[in-house]
Amino acid sequence: MKILVVNPNTTASMTAKIGAAARSVAAAGTEIEAVNPAMGPVSIEGFYDEAFCVPGLITEVMAGEKRGAQAVVVACFDDPGIDAARTVTSIPVIGICEAAMRMAGFLGHRFTIVTTLPVSLPAMDGLIRRYGMEGRGRARAAGVPVLALEDPASGAVEKVRAEIRRAIAEDGSECILLGCAGMADLARELTAEMGLPVIDGVAAAVKLAEGLVGLGLSTSKVAGYARPGVKPYAGMLEGFAPS
Amino acid sequence: MKILVVNPNTTASMTAKIGAAARSVAAAGTEIEAVNPAMGPVSIEGFYDEAFCVPGLITEVMAGEKRGAQAVVVACFDDPGIDAARTVTSIPVIGICEAAMRMAGFLGHRFTIVTTLPVSLPAMDGLIRRYGMEGRGRARAAGVPVLALEDPASGAVEKVRAEIRRAIAEDGSECILLGCAGMADLARELTAEMGLPVIDGVAAAVKLAEGLVGLGLSTSKVAGYARPGVKPYAGMLEGFAPS
Amino acid sequence: MKILVVNPNTTASMTAKIGAAARSVAAAGTEIEAVNPAMGPVSIEGFYDEAFCVPGLITEVMAGEKRGAQAVVVACFDDPGIDAARTVTSIPVIGICEAAMRMAGFLGHRFTIVTTLPVSLPAMDGLIRRYGMEGRGRARAAGVPVLALEDPASGAVEKVRAEIRRAIAEDGSECILLGCAGMADLARELTAEMGLPVIDGVAAAVKLAEGLVGLGLSTSKVAGYARPGVKPYAGMLEGFAPS
Amino acid sequence: MKILVVNPNTTASMTAKIGAAARSVAAAGTEIEAVNPAMGPVSIEGFYDEAFCVPGLITEVMAGEKRGAQAVVVACFDDPGIDAARTVTSIPVIGICEAAMRMAGFLGHRFTIVTTLPVSLPAMDGLIRRYGMEGRGRARAAGVPVLALEDPASGAVEKVRAEIRRAIAEDGSECILLGCAGMADLARELTAEMGLPVIDGVAAAVKLAEGLVGLGLSTSKVAGYARPGVKPYAGMLEGFAPS
Amino acid sequence: MKILVVNPNTTASMTAKIGAAARSVAAAGTEIEAVNPAMGPVSIEGFYDEAFCVPGLITEVMAGEKRGAQAVVVACFDDPGIDAARTVTSIPVIGICEAAMRMAGFLGHRFTIVTTLPVSLPAMDGLIRRYGMEGRGRARAAGVPVLALEDPASGAVEKVRAEIRRAIAEDGSECILLGCAGMADLARELTAEMGLPVIDGVAAAVKLAEGLVGLGLSTSKVAGYARPGVKPYAGMLEGFAPS
Amino acid sequence: MKILVVNPNTTASMTAKIGAAARSVAAAGTEIEAVNPAMGPVSIEGFYDEAFCVPGLITEVMAGEKRGAQAVVVACFDDPGIDAARTVTSIPVIGICEAAMRMAGFLGHRFTIVTTLPVSLPAMDGLIRRYGMEGRGRARAAGVPVLALEDPASGAVEKVRAEIRRAIAEDGSECILLGCAGMADLARELTAEMGLPVIDGVAAAVKLAEGLVGLGLSTSKVAGYARPGVKPYAGMLEGFAPS
Repeated sequence: MKILVVNPNTTASMTAKIGAAARSVAAAGTEIEAVNPAMGPVSIEGFYDEAFCVPGLITEVMAGEKRGAQAVVVACFDDPGIDAARTVTSIPVIGICEAAMRMAGFLGHRFTIVTTLPVSLPAMDGLIRRYGMEGRGRARAAGVPVLALEDPASGAVEKVRAEIRRAIAEDGSECILLGCAGMADLARELTAEMGLPVIDGVAAAVKLAEGLVGLGLSTSKVAGYARPGVKPYAGMLEGFAPS
Repeated sequence: MKILVVNPNTTASMTAKIGAAARSVAAAGTEIEAVNPAMGPVSIEGFYDEAFCVPGLITEVMAGEKRGAQAVVVACFDDPGIDAARTVTSIPVIGICEAAMRMAGFLGHRFTIVTTLPVSLPAMDGLIRRYGMEGRGRARAAGVPVLALEDPASGAVEKVRAEIRRAIAEDGSECILLGCAGMADLARELTAEMGLPVIDGVAAAVKLAEGLVGLGLSTSKVAGYARPGVKPYAGMLEGFAPS
Repeated sequence: MKILVVNPNTTASMTAKIGAAARSVAAAGTEIEAVNPAMGPVSIEGFYDEAFCVPGLITEVMAGEKRGAQAVVVACFDDPGIDAARTVTSIPVIGICEAAMRMAGFLGHRFTIVTTLPVSLPAMDGLIRRYGMEGRGRARAAGVPVLALEDPASGAVEKVRAEIRRAIAEDGSECILLGCAGMADLARELTAEMGLPVIDGVAAAVKLAEGLVGLGLSTSKVAGYARPGVKPYAGMLEGFAPS
Repeated sequence: MKILVVNPNTTASMTAKIGAAARSVAAAGTEIEAVNPAMGPVSIEGFYDEAFCVPGLITEVMAGEKRGAQAVVVACFDDPGIDAARTVTSIPVIGICEAAMRMAGFLGHRFTIVTTLPVSLPAMDGLIRRYGMEGRGRARAAGVPVLALEDPASGAVEKVRAEIRRAIAEDGSECILLGCAGMADLARELTAEMGLPVIDGVAAAVKLAEGLVGLGLSTSKVAGYARPGVKPYAGMLEGFAPS
Repeated sequence: MKILVVNPNTTASMTAKIGAAARSVAAAGTEIEAVNPAMGPVSIEGFYDEAFCVPGLITEVMAGEKRGAQAVVVACFDDPGIDAARTVTSIPVIGICEAAMRMAGFLGHRFTIVTTLPVSLPAMDGLIRRYGMEGRGRARAAGVPVLALEDPASGAVEKVRAEIRRAIAEDGSECILLGCAGMADLARELTAEMGLPVIDGVAAAVKLAEGLVGLGLSTSKVAGYARPGVKPYAGMLEGFAPS
Repeated sequence: MKILVVNPNTTASMTAKIGAAARSVAAAGTEIEAVNPAMGPVSIEGFYDEAFCVPGLITEVMAGEKRGAQAVVVACFDDPGIDAARTVTSIPVIGICEAAMRMAGFLGHRFTIVTTLPVSLPAMDGLIRRYGMEGRGRARAAGVPVLALEDPASGAVEKVRAEIRRAIAEDGSECILLGCAGMADLARELTAEMGLPVIDGVAAAVKLAEGLVGLGLSTSKVAGYARPGVKPYAGMLEGFAPS
């Protein structure tokens, strides 16, 4: 089975880390193809970056499917472009925020998302509402930019660790969700250290992707995720016109 | 006061209709600038088109602000790109779905959105949840493509009319929301005909825009709608990098 | 256009302040008629006062409509008598709490209402639920009686300011809502000072009223806001019988 | 124990019926005092009547407490004036809608409220939301005016019966709530006839009142239901000023 | 009237205390039969104990009904086995958590449950959601094991008292709910001491039971609470097979 | 990897079918051990059976873990005993209702559960609320007893098929969830036939179990799912006392 993991930003070191995290949990027969778009933002911090990662994400999803991918993981905790990506393919498309929340839901009741910057907190609130987890989950920001997670000297990991400790002490959380794909390498270590499940959405989504493929299920095409109707697109985005 | 009304698709006839609808309700001192992007989809039907209208929408928002716009109306009932657009400017940005729902909320309790195609119903469900109107509103599709509304011979208006009559008969609705900017010209006539408020989101949003400008309020910049951090964007979208 | 702004308490100085706030945002062609009932409570603090302001409020709404008002603003943050007022007229009736929440919703995700006394907090909780904003908004009390806001020597404004600072520090709020019509004069100054939108419901409601009138919309009469059926009322309230 | 049952409209025949219903379920030591105000609407149908029954209701509550009542039942299914009434006394105040919903909640999951006229449906929706029963309950109107229930020749009871049968057939309801105090005499007969609990709110509230009194509990005075602060009221309502 | 109060754990001293609490509020004609099963856990702390109290609870419910009980109170704040118990009998079955919440709802808006151990907090969260009280109530743990409440030397009562004081100071609660049947003896004293309603679910449920019996209502048998279909059960539980 | 699939009823033919369904989707290295308890109900239809399957279920979970199981699937769509089972082990425990809903959530917005008998509809409503899917999902009953699904001559499968067709026609559903483990063999065929995802919870849960094991995650032990405290149990259930 081949799973496409799209890091929707353009930072190759982060793609490599995400790919490694994906491979570290992939089943024996699963091939992980970790890619990032050639176009778009170098990191995704807030709604603007989120919107501009979508064309590149869609490009990668379509190309990946042609190369034989059977499911897609979108490796950004804002779940950007998820709905659009689901329309261009029948293979399952999984966002890492939804993936992490669902896995957490089997392991405990209350959870805390520890994300990077406060700019992302309203987006997290929105996803908690979208996914029906009001009253079970909340979000906190560790105060680290996404790319600081790529720099061992930044102290970012220590800030994440400290925020997780605050969540455990103050929120009564039973699970911690790492609120950025750039934290994907931390989950196992922090799970052991903190004494409760610390969940990385990339890994969670890979297993969900394997699961959906194994079930022979594909995205429903009867309503919201129907193929885009054929129509012209103008200008720079002409090449994205559904055909 | 100058209000930018962005039709986020590229169909000029629809922009003209939207602009006329906007002007028909604008206050004496309000200048309506109705534009559409040069890039992107010819109509917005479903999540894919929605995603690809955003770059053009953002371009128009930024250009419009430079030309002196004091508020922006996004004239598509899916409220596409609303969150992203709010980050690039301090002037208020108003989606027509949220606008129509809020105006309806002052006039009655239960409402029905009559939109174009069934592909949009899950998006409408999602917006009803996002805006906290579960239990008050529902959505129906009239079964007409967006651009059929541009063609008097298509019979589209009759289908909309019939669906509104079903909503009144079956849903106990106190207000009807026209679920597509392409229906903007129908609101007054249908309000009179149906005997209850039939609300066009474009017109509603223009009045809300005038209101927010008149209040001297601008988009909050302390969290989710903070200006995008400066960072490089790659490839085709390079020009959209926040600077 | 003529908008009736009813301060539903009987304190004329507060009516004057509210009227000034309303006029300061009214459009060029808008005439603001700010009134208060001759009967009822001198200030509205809690559910009891709220109930007893309604007959006076209704009286003013009906008289105002006869004098040509095209919309009504009810200038008390508890939104008292809103539903009843909507039944006696076809012109739109807007409560300042709902108005402020809706305007805030276009500018940010999380908000805090800063009201006067703790007695009003359960009413605020109830309105947050009624308007579907659970998980986005919360309420705090500054600990000032309503009429202290009429007395510059009371220190009330400083207490409001301090509570707003606590809300910003502790709640992650993107907008502040001034939870009493008696704070209507503070919004612009505090918006500048606090660096985020500080919203006065009176001003917000005036702009919404202008908007609804400009749209040619009136209150739906098909269900909950239908005209009261003709019937006798007994005793002191005989004069209020629907006819 | 003495329980005051206030029919908040002025129709004495309905008060008698309500009193009889209350007495038919009252415990051995419970004295039911059924009263109606001298002022206010002859029946309560919609938000306007609801608002104008409150002064008379409050008058009766205060007078009843002075005569030794230990709890109050407000016998109108819209639960009018409940919050205000709770502020003027420490004795428990129970609305019949909340009472009926709570009793139903112990006997089944889904319920339907069968009320009088469609004008009341939005009020019912609002109470379902207020009491947290979204997804469990819905409301239907039998199409009978309140006072038709006082007239055996009106056919009103047959219409109620027919609407209950539709609710059972179409809603999957496990309990029926009689959505008007004027139906209080029908509960036992319809329970037997329909084969499921048909709940009258008046009777339900009497038992809840007995319960709260028996528990020695009184209305919380620490926040929303604190005694109204002393202040002047003007005009016709002067006599209602808190003192 | 005879009410069966089942302490679903096997600790006789706690049954005695619960029985006394029940009797202290029972009406003149009410006989309280307080029992506990011969089988099952000595105390109920968390989901596991909760599951294993159910067979004993059901046994007691069925036996109690044969001895003439007209209603059942399940005296554990987790409301264990409530749904199952409702299927085996037509007499009303009342859980003390639901009972306490409903009584609190008539007396104030916000409440706090003070329970024993943190292990029970997710169960409390789940019940708050089940009963539709999100946004009104929260839960806290006093950090005392259930059986410490049976031991005057344990200091348990002081810890409960301290936690209640924290709830009042920090939560803005208008009512306190004692989150364990083992606290049933504390309600009256703490109500007086704390100056707000401190509600014991056992007592609350007894009054609700009296109420439902007085109304002549029984559990709805049309859907979820229909009698279990006749079928064989195997092994140790053979005797529980529905017949 | 070894996954224990517990059919919590005692019908071996159903266990065999469930085991086959589980194996048909299991990954290459996954061993499925399908078991059913020796004690308890022959089928689970409603809350009573649900409660009495739990001791047998727990026995199987504990025995299975000793034999090396790394995750548990509870193969009944009511998700019975899930919370209790999670306390006795650290390995993940997955209910098939939650599993099916979560998988559906990645493939479409609206879903319908097609279950066996109307007695189960309130339980389904409760799970939809528990899992936060209000407004996205509803439940229907095909009117077939569980064990009719074991009898090819019963016509049960045709009734399920017909109910699915009604769901597609009337609910606008994008996914169908088979609401009984006894339908596990139908998913692939019906998915092909109906043209949208028809999801069997057993298969879904197996893949989620593989996923959670692959992630190295275990049930959180910090609050609700902590190991049961050591204490005596009396009577028939003595052997279940936590030790």
